[in-house]
Amino acid sequence: MVRQAKKASSARNSSNSSDHSEKMDMDTSNGYHCPNGDTLQELQDCANRMRITSIEITAAANSGHPTSSCSAAEIVSTLFFHEMRYDPSNPRDPSSDRFVLSKGHASPILYAAWLETGHLTKSQVMTLRKIDSDIEGHPTPRLDFVDIATGSLGQGLSSAAGMAYVGKYIDKASYRVYCLIGDGESAEGAVWEAAAFASTYKLDNLVAVFDVNRLGQSQATPLGHDVQTYQKRLEAFGFHAIIVDGHDVAALLKAFHVAKTVSEKPVAIIAKTLKGKGIEGVEDQDNWHGKPVPLEKIKAIEQRIKNKGTIALKPQPPIYDAPKVDLKLGHIKLSEGPNYKVGDKVATRLAYGTALVKIGKGSDRVIALDGDTKNSTFSDKFLKEFPDRFIECFIAEQNLVGVAVGAATRHRTIPFCSTFAAFFTRAADQLRVAAISFANIKCAGSHVGVSIGEDGPSQMALEDLALFRSIPDSTVFYPTDAVSCERAVEFAANIQGLVFIRTGRPALPVIYKNDEHFEIGKAKVVRQSDSDKIVLVGAGVTLYEALKAADILAKEGINAAVVDLFTIKPIDKETLVKQAQRVGGKVLTVEDHYPAGGLGEAVASALGDTPNVLVRSLAVTGVPRSGECDALLEMFGISANCIVKAVHQFL
Amino acid sequence: MVRQAKKASSARNSSNSSDHSEKMDMDTSNGYHCPNGDTLQELQDCANRMRITSIEITAAANSGHPTSSCSAAEIVSTLFFHEMRYDPSNPRDPSSDRFVLSKGHASPILYAAWLETGHLTKSQVMTLRKIDSDIEGHPTPRLDFVDIATGSLGQGLSSAAGMAYVGKYIDKASYRVYCLIGDGESAEGAVWEAAAFASTYKLDNLVAVFDVNRLGQSQATPLGHDVQTYQKRLEAFGFHAIIVDGHDVAALLKAFHVAKTVSEKPVAIIAKTLKGKGIEGVEDQDNWHGKPVPLEKIKAIEQRIKNKGTIALKPQPPIYDAPKVDLKLGHIKLSEGPNYKVGDKVATRLAYGTALVKIGKGSDRVIALDGDTKNSTFSDKFLKEFPDRFIECFIAEQNLVGVAVGAATRHRTIPFCSTFAAFFTRAADQLRVAAISFANIKCAGSHVGVSIGEDGPSQMALEDLALFRSIPDSTVFYPTDAVSCERAVEFAANIQGLVFIRTGRPALPVIYKNDEHFEIGKAKVVRQSDSDKIVLVGAGVTLYEALKAADILAKEGINAAVVDLFTIKPIDKETLVKQAQRVGGKVLTVEDHYPAGGLGEAVASALGDTPNVLVRSLAVTGVPRSGECDALLEMFGISANCIVKAVHQFL
Repeated sequence: MVRQAKKASSARNSSNSSDHSEKMDMDTSNGYHCPNGDTLQELQDCANRMRITSIEITAAANSGHPTSSCSAAEIVSTLFFHEMRYDPSNPRDPSSDRFVLSKGHASPILYAAWLETGHLTKSQVMTLRKIDSDIEGHPTPRLDFVDIATGSLGQGLSSAAGMAYVGKYIDKASYRVYCLIGDGESAEGAVWEAAAFASTYKLDNLVAVFDVNRLGQSQATPLGHDVQTYQKRLEAFGFHAIIVDGHDVAALLKAFHVAKTVSEKPVAIIAKTLKGKGIEGVEDQDNWHGKPVPLEKIKAIEQRIKNKGTIALKPQPPIYDAPKVDLKLGHIKLSEGPNYKVGDKVATRLAYGTALVKIGKGSDRVIALDGDTKNSTFSDKFLKEFPDRFIECFIAEQNLVGVAVGAATRHRTIPFCSTFAAFFTRAADQLRVAAISFANIKCAGSHVGVSIGEDGPSQMALEDLALFRSIPDSTVFYPTDAVSCERAVEFAANIQGLVFIRTGRPALPVIYKNDEHFEIGKAKVVRQSDSDKIVLVGAGVTLYEALKAADILAKEGINAAVVDLFTIKPIDKETLVKQAQRVGGKVLTVEDHYPAGGLGEAVASALGDTPNVLVRSLAVTGVPRSGECDALLEMFGISANCIVKAVHQFL
Repeated sequence: MVRQAKKASSARNSSNSSDHSEKMDMDTSNGYHCPNGDTLQELQDCANRMRITSIEITAAANSGHPTSSCSAAEIVSTLFFHEMRYDPSNPRDPSSDRFVLSKGHASPILYAAWLETGHLTKSQVMTLRKIDSDIEGHPTPRLDFVDIATGSLGQGLSSAAGMAYVGKYIDKASYRVYCLIGDGESAEGAVWEAAAFASTYKLDNLVAVFDVNRLGQSQATPLGHDVQTYQKRLEAFGFHAIIVDGHDVAALLKAFHVAKTVSEKPVAIIAKTLKGKGIEGVEDQDNWHGKPVPLEKIKAIEQRIKNKGTIALKPQPPIYDAPKVDLKLGHIKLSEGPNYKVGDKVATRLAYGTALVKIGKGSDRVIALDGDTKNSTFSDKFLKEFPDRFIECFIAEQNLVGVAVGAATRHRTIPFCSTFAAFFTRAADQLRVAAISFANIKCAGSHVGVSIGEDGPSQMALEDLALFRSIPDSTVFYPTDAVSCERAVEFAANIQGLVFIRTGRPALPVIYKNDEHFEIGKAKVVRQSDSDKIVLVGAGVTLYEALKAADILAKEGINAAVVDLFTIKPIDKETLVKQAQRVGGKVLTVEDHYPAGGLGEAVASALGDTPNVLVRSLAVTGVPRSGECDALLEMFGISANCIVKAVHQFL
C-alpha cells in the first residue's frame, strides 16, 4: 500500500512544497479520500479519552506532564488508529511501523495510546512513575512498545532517521518511521543534524511531526506559533513540510496521506497545537509545564466524547516484508585472525579498520558509521569492502550516535561508529541515554591522548575513558597493539550493549602473537620476574613507555612487572591484586588521559580495599599543547623517563 | 561609524534578503563606494602572501591544513585589512572587533594574518606546531590574539554570539564580531543552535562568514557548492544571508559593508570558495585535507603578487567605547551571608538561586544563563532581580555553554550557566574545549542523581562529576546544604577558570550555621568521636544518608565519623588521610552518581598511596528508574540501610 501510494505521487512531488499551507486545499486526484465522519469522531473521541488518561495517571502519580500530552492527543490518535501499520500484540515486530516519542515527557499520551490498543490495562497505566512499574516518567525500552529511551530532548529524530535508513537501505522493507518532536526541543542542534541527515539520504519513509504548542518549560519558545518559520527551516533542510492544525483529525489524516506520496524526501508535519488543549483554564497557559492538573477538569472533556468505551478502530497490520535477522550474538567471528609479525609497527586505529572489514564478513548485519574522519579512523576500509553497509554521517557526532542507536533497534544491525575519540564527547548525552536505551552500539574512538602530537589539545581525547566508563553496563577496551585490537573488535560484535574501543594514532610495535588468547576483563602480564619490586600498569602508548621504563630500571637492578589491562571496564581486579601482592604491594599506573575517571582511578578503586597495596598514578595534568609525540609524553609526565622517576620516588 | 551605517540601513532592511544573490547588483545609494583598485590589489596580494605563509609554515611543520587556509585567504585579508577595527599592538583591547576562527584547523591563515599585521614575526610563525611554541596546530588563547580555542568543529558561532550579545546588551559598545565557519562544520547542530540564538536576540553586530569550499576531510560535503541552500537555511534561521564569490575581494568588501547596514538581524556571508585555492593541481581537489603541499607550489602564487613586501594597508582603529571593567576576582562577595536556620529544609538548587542574586549584587558583571529550566534551577530569581543580565538560551545546552565561553572573553563578564546537570553532558565537548580556552565560566547543574525521583533516568545526572572532574584545572563543588551552597557560589565567582556546582532537587535540612567558614578544597568533619571505627564520606543527599547510618550504627555500638567533602576537586586529601588514620584505616564513600569518575574514585585515588587505608565505595550501578527518592536510594544501594550493611561487611 505504501508503495502504491508512492507510485501515485509523482504529480505532487513536482509541486512547490510550500503550497501546503495551513488551509489544506488538496484535491483528491492523488487518490485521497477523507475517512467518513464516524471514523473522524472515533479518532477525536480517542484523543479525548487519551487526554483523560493522561490527566488521571499524572494525578495519581502526583507528577508528570499532562499538558504536553494533551497538545499531541489528536496527532497520536490519528497515528495509532489510522496511519500506522503495526500489530499491538507484538509491538517489536520488525515489519511494524516505528513510533519515536522524541518529546519523552509526553509519555502519558503514549501510555494512553497503548491502553487504547489493549496492550496495556488501566491498572498498569495507573502505576505511572511507581518504582515497581516500567511505566516510567519518560519512556524506556523496558517497555516492549518503546524502542529508544527519550526524555533528554532533541534526540529522537536521529534515532528515527537511523531506523528509517535501515528500513530503506538495509532491510529494504515497507515499514515507516514516525517521530513526534516538541517545538521547544527543536532548539536542540541535534534535531538539525538529524534533519540534514534525513534529507541527504532521501529518507522518504520518515515523518517528523512537530507538536508546536508554543510553550516551553519556563516560558514561551522564541518562535511561538510561527509555524511558517518552522516550515521554512525544514524545507531548507530538505524536508517536504506541511503545516496543519494539530487538533483537526481530518487535517492530520490528510497530511499523513500526503506524506506517503512524497518520494526521495523526508516529510515534516508541522502541527499547530495548544499546550493543555482541552483542559479548561489550563489550555495555552504558561506555568503548567510538568504539573498534574485537577481531576475535575476531566468532566468537560468527557462531555465531548460521543462514543464511550474503547476505540472501535483497529490499527492496520504491518506489511510483513522485513527480512528475518538472527544476529547470533556470541558467534560472530573475524573472517580471519590477526595477521601480523611481532615487532611490526601498526597503529591500533589501522588494526581497527582491518578488523572491521573482517567482522563485516562475519555478519552481514554489521554496519559502520563515521563522521567524516574515515580516512583517519580507517573505517574507510569497510566502506571500500561494504559500500552498502557504510553510513557517512558527516561532521555531526550527536547524530552519528543517534543514528547508530536507531539502527540497532529491534536487532536489525550491529552498528560500529567511529570518529576521533575526542569528538565522542560531542555525543556524551546521546551515549548517556543510549545506556538507558540498552542500545547495542559499538564506538571506536581514535586519536587518543597527547600521543597524537602536533594537532594539539582540541583533537586529543583525554576524558574519553571517564565518559565511557561512567556509562552503566558499558564495556571499555583499550587495546595496546594490533592483535589485541582486532580481538577487541571481535568481542565488541558479540557483547550486547555499549562498547568502546580506544585506538591510538601512532604506529607502535605488535607485541602479541597472532594466536594469543584474549578474554573480556582479563589483563595480560607482559613482563614479570621473581624479583619484581613494583607493578607498572598501562595500555596503548603508555604500555610501551612502561616497557621501556622497565628496561631502564632493570639495568639499575630494579625489576618491574608490566601489566597490559586490555579491558579497562570490567577491570581485571584478580590479576591486579595477584601482581600487586606478588611484588610487595606497589602499583604505578600510567595513562595518556586526564586523571579523573581514567585508567589510574579504575585501578585505584579496584584495589582500594586490598590490604597492603599502594597505588600511584601518572596521567596528563593540565591542558596539553601541540608538539611531537615523544616530547609531549615527556612534558606531560607519562614517558618512560617519568615512569622511572616515579618508581624511584615510590620505592 | 558603525552606528551611522546602521542608521542608513532602513531602506535595505525592508527589501527581501534573498535578493542578495551571487551577482551583487547593489547600488551605492546607501553610501557604499568600492575601494580603489590599489586597495583591492593590496588585499588580493595580501591574500596570496598569506597563502604562501600557510604553505611555508605547514611544510616546515610537516603537518597542518594549508588547503583549508587557502580557501579563506581573501575572506581573511579583507576582514583584517579593511573591515575589522582593532589595534594590532593590543589584540585584546575590549573595544576591538572580535574574530573567531571556528574552523580552527585553518590556523595557518590566522597566523599569516597576524604576521601581516606585524604582531608576529616570520620566525615566530615558522615555529608552527613545535612544542615550545604557542603557534599551535589549532589556535588557543595562549596567543593574545585568540579569544577562544577552536578545532573541535562547529563551536565558534556560539561563542561569537556570546561576545556579540555582551557587546550589544551588556557593554553596549560598537565592537563587532566576525566568525569564520567552514561548510563541513556547519553540519554540527551547535551551529544551528547558535544561529537561532543570534536571530532571537537580534545580534546585528555579528557576522558569520561561511567558507563554502565544498570539501570535507574525507569526501565532499552533502551540499557541495549549493550556496543557495546555505542561504535558505540561514534565512530561515533569521539571518540576513548574502552569497558572494569568496575569492573576489571587491565582492567581499561590498558584502561586509552591507552587513553593517543590517539592523536587528545577524548577517551571514556565504562565500563560495575553493579548497586549496591558488595551489596548482591541488585547488578544488579531494584528498588534500590536512596535508602540507610541496613548497614549489609557492612560485606560481608569488607571480600573482603585484606589490611585494608587507601590506601597505593598516587596520582601522577600534571605536574606544567599551566600558572599563575590573572584575576584581577574589573580592566579589555575596551581598549578604546565608540566612537559614539549622534544620530548615532547603534544596541546594534553591540556595543556588538565592546566592546567584546575592553575587549578582556583588558584581554588575555577573550574568546568568539558563536553558529553559530556570524555574527548576531557580536561576529565575536572578532574572527577576537583574533582567538585563539574564540570558535565556532555551533548550540548546551546547549553545548555552558556548555563549558563556564567549561572554567571558576579555574579562567582560562572569557567566553562571545553569540547567539540569544531566543536560550539561550535552555540552561535554564545549566544556572540554572551554578548558583549552581557559574559560572563566561557572556551571551549576541541578537535579542530580537518583534522588530526583519520579522523572526517571533520562533526567538524572549520574556522570556529571566524572565529566567536570576530568576537565583540567576545573573546580568541582558538591555542597550538601544551603549554607555551603551559597558559599560555593561565592567561591565560584572568585576563582579564575571553570567551576561546577552540583545541586540537588530534594529539600534537605540545613546543617551548617550561617557563619560557618568554608574553604576551597577543605572538607568538613560533620560527625566524629574518639571511638570511630570507620569514616563515611558523602556529599549532598548521601551525606544525610551517612548521618542516618551513623545514628543506626551508633545504636549498635559502632561509631562512625562522617565527612562532607564540599569540594570534590581539589579534594581534601589531608583531612581524608587524617580521618582514615584516626579510625584505623577504613573509609566508605557513598555517592548519588555512577562509580566511574565520581566521589568514590576521587577518594580512592587520593588515598591510593596512603599505607594501611582501605577504601570501599557505594554508588549507583546499573540504569536507574522512576520512583520515589527514598525507594530509589534503597534500590540503588546508597541509602542509610545500604551504608549500614556495607559497614557491617567492611568491619
